Amino acid sequence: MIIVSGMRATGKLHIGNLVTLKEWVEIQEKSPNNFFFVADWHALTSHFDSVEIIEESTLDILRHYLAVGLNPEKSVLFVQSAIKEHAELYLLLSMITSVSRLERIPTYKDQINNISDRDLTNLGFLGYPLLQAADILMYKGDIVPVGEDQIYHIEFTRETARKFNLQYREVFPEPQALISKVKKLPGTDGRKMSKSYGNIINIETNEKELKEKILPMMTDPARIRRTDPGDPEKCPVWEYHKAFTKLQDEKEWVIHGCTTASIGCVDCKKLLIRNMKEEMQPIWNNLAKISKDDAKNIALDGNEKARKVAKQTMQEVKDAMHLRW
Amino acid sequence: MIIVSGMRATGKLHIGNLVTLKEWVEIQEKSPNNFFFVADWHALTSHFDSVEIIEESTLDILRHYLAVGLNPEKSVLFVQSAIKEHAELYLLLSMITSVSRLERIPTYKDQINNISDRDLTNLGFLGYPLLQAADILMYKGDIVPVGEDQIYHIEFTRETARKFNLQYREVFPEPQALISKVKKLPGTDGRKMSKSYGNIINIETNEKELKEKILPMMTDPARIRRTDPGDPEKCPVWEYHKAFTKLQDEKEWVIHGCTTASIGCVDCKKLLIRNMKEEMQPIWNNLAKISKDDAKNIALDGNEKARKVAKQTMQEVKDAMHLRW
Ligand code: SF4
Ligand code: SF4
Repeated sequence: MIIVSGMRATGKLHIGNLVTLKEWVEIQEKSPNNFFFVADWHALTSHFDSVEIIEESTLDILRHYLAVGLNPEKSVLFVQSAIKEHAELYLLLSMITSVSRLERIPTYKDQINNISDRDLTNLGFLGYPLLQAADILMYKGDIVPVGEDQIYHIEFTRETARKFNLQYREVFPEPQALISKVKKLPGTDGRKMSKSYGNIINIETNEKELKEKILPMMTDPARIRRTDPGDPEKCPVWEYHKAFTKLQDEKEWVIHGCTTASIGCVDCKKLLIRNMKEEMQPIWNNLAKISKDDAKNIALDGNEKARKVAKQTMQEVKDAMHLRW
Repeated sequence: MIIVSGMRATGKLHIGNLVTLKEWVEIQEKSPNNFFFVADWHALTSHFDSVEIIEESTLDILRHYLAVGLNPEKSVLFVQSAIKEHAELYLLLSMITSVSRLERIPTYKDQINNISDRDLTNLGFLGYPLLQAADILMYKGDIVPVGEDQIYHIEFTRETARKFNLQYREVFPEPQALISKVKKLPGTDGRKMSKSYGNIINIETNEKELKEKILPMMTDPARIRRTDPGDPEKCPVWEYHKAFTKLQDEKEWVIHGCTTASIGCVDCKKLLIRNMKEEMQPIWNNLAKISKDDAKNIALDGNEKARKVAKQTMQEVKDAMHLRW
């Protein structure tokens, strides 16, 4: 069972990413064959004009991979742009992938229409899902842990694998999406997390900042006074509890207290802060110890391992395509 | 002055290509810094379903390069797919190249609309001119010898170089197109050369075949009887004379003889056959001596040289883009 996934190097990681990273660590403890990378080329599709951010956040994400518990002895941690073979496979797959097929991918039209602060008209952005397919197929990934919004991309990867196998020779397995158990966390204002809304909590923070972000958090709008009962399902604080509050007792305390107005929102948030801190403190400690240089060295090592596998796959691909140079 | 050009590996080379190759040899004798490659990846954009042809014709084209007089001591002769860096540069340039810009390239719409026996709907075909730009910019080409139909692609390459230099850092010179002095040769029936019309004369042929192709050639349609005067400008045989008949005397003999009906078309064609044979005999001799293995070894050597330059360029590109892995 080979597991492949990556994160785009477009800035600081936030607590939404933390939920994902914790799932990766869980996978790592169960399965010995994992490839987790930082997608700096993918970042270019939207951030070609802010390459300093990409450079900076590539190392930063690697630090987070390590701090959260990804272990270079158990998983290959590497940087996409270090493995030229991804570009080669992308180019080769582009020969059997129709333009209109890519244009029909829902996330493409969606983002082209909805994102106005970034120039997404470039060829790289159109090819994004195909580069993602190349990333996965390169390591013959069987399982790809992703959020709900990426399911279609994995389906497209499967389709691309089938197409290649049929046209040339059986080289690629069809990967399965492993959908995250946790729903995407909303921002502190209940809207989608977005840098431009200022509603994000970064992983690399501290208790003081955590309080400053959680205490003013938006709650169930119907709970105006302390005495009004609330509905956790309408409250982003509850979404956070689902991700960070482990004890069933405490969860029940929130639900009961909220719906009967026996606790106030501040009580509820204080519990959340405590639980988040408990979970994040060891990560903060790790982050304080892991320098960018440490991260770089780990990645240089991981790049070597990834490259070895990539070269092997490309040998098969090029053999199948009669490109024997 | 750095010169870069290539030919697509989609089949046998014909006498139209011979005209081009002779111009390359001329350039080689004047300039010491040349890169001539076989574009096997480009061939995939239209021939992804006939990869055996690409493999076969890659070696075959290399044999022709050598037979016509390209000299591995003077020019770097290499194979595109051997230099992964082209794929990497293509991917990076795709981040600053808009899809609509590529769709507006005249050859794209043209071929999409007019070529029905090939599937050109793939992403690779849309990206074709950008891969071509990467091929040229990789070697910091100043001069690109091309046919008239490729002028727009060189203009696009210049634009891509400017865009990169402006967005990141001055890395690429803007190449100039060097337009072929000889008009594209028509097929033996006066139409565009095309495998499907069966109107092509391959370079690798012999005197007997040459006669069989030239003698029945289409002539000025107004010259029905031997006694009708003709107009060379309306005759494809004359186009061939322009490419293969060197002596001014002989050219005048054709023009005078044709326009006054003092020579017959058979006389005219016999002269052409003699002159073509004279030019092609040494090439045939060379081709008989150059095996595919010879060609392969020359290319392996050329690939090394090309790769060295490519790595150097990519270092600069990646530095400029803060991709320091
Ligand atoms: S008590 Fe908790 S779950 Fe209920 S509205 Fe307040 S913050 Fe939200
Ligand atoms: S004489 Fe020569 S140029 Fe004139 S029509 Fe005949 S073949 Fe053509």
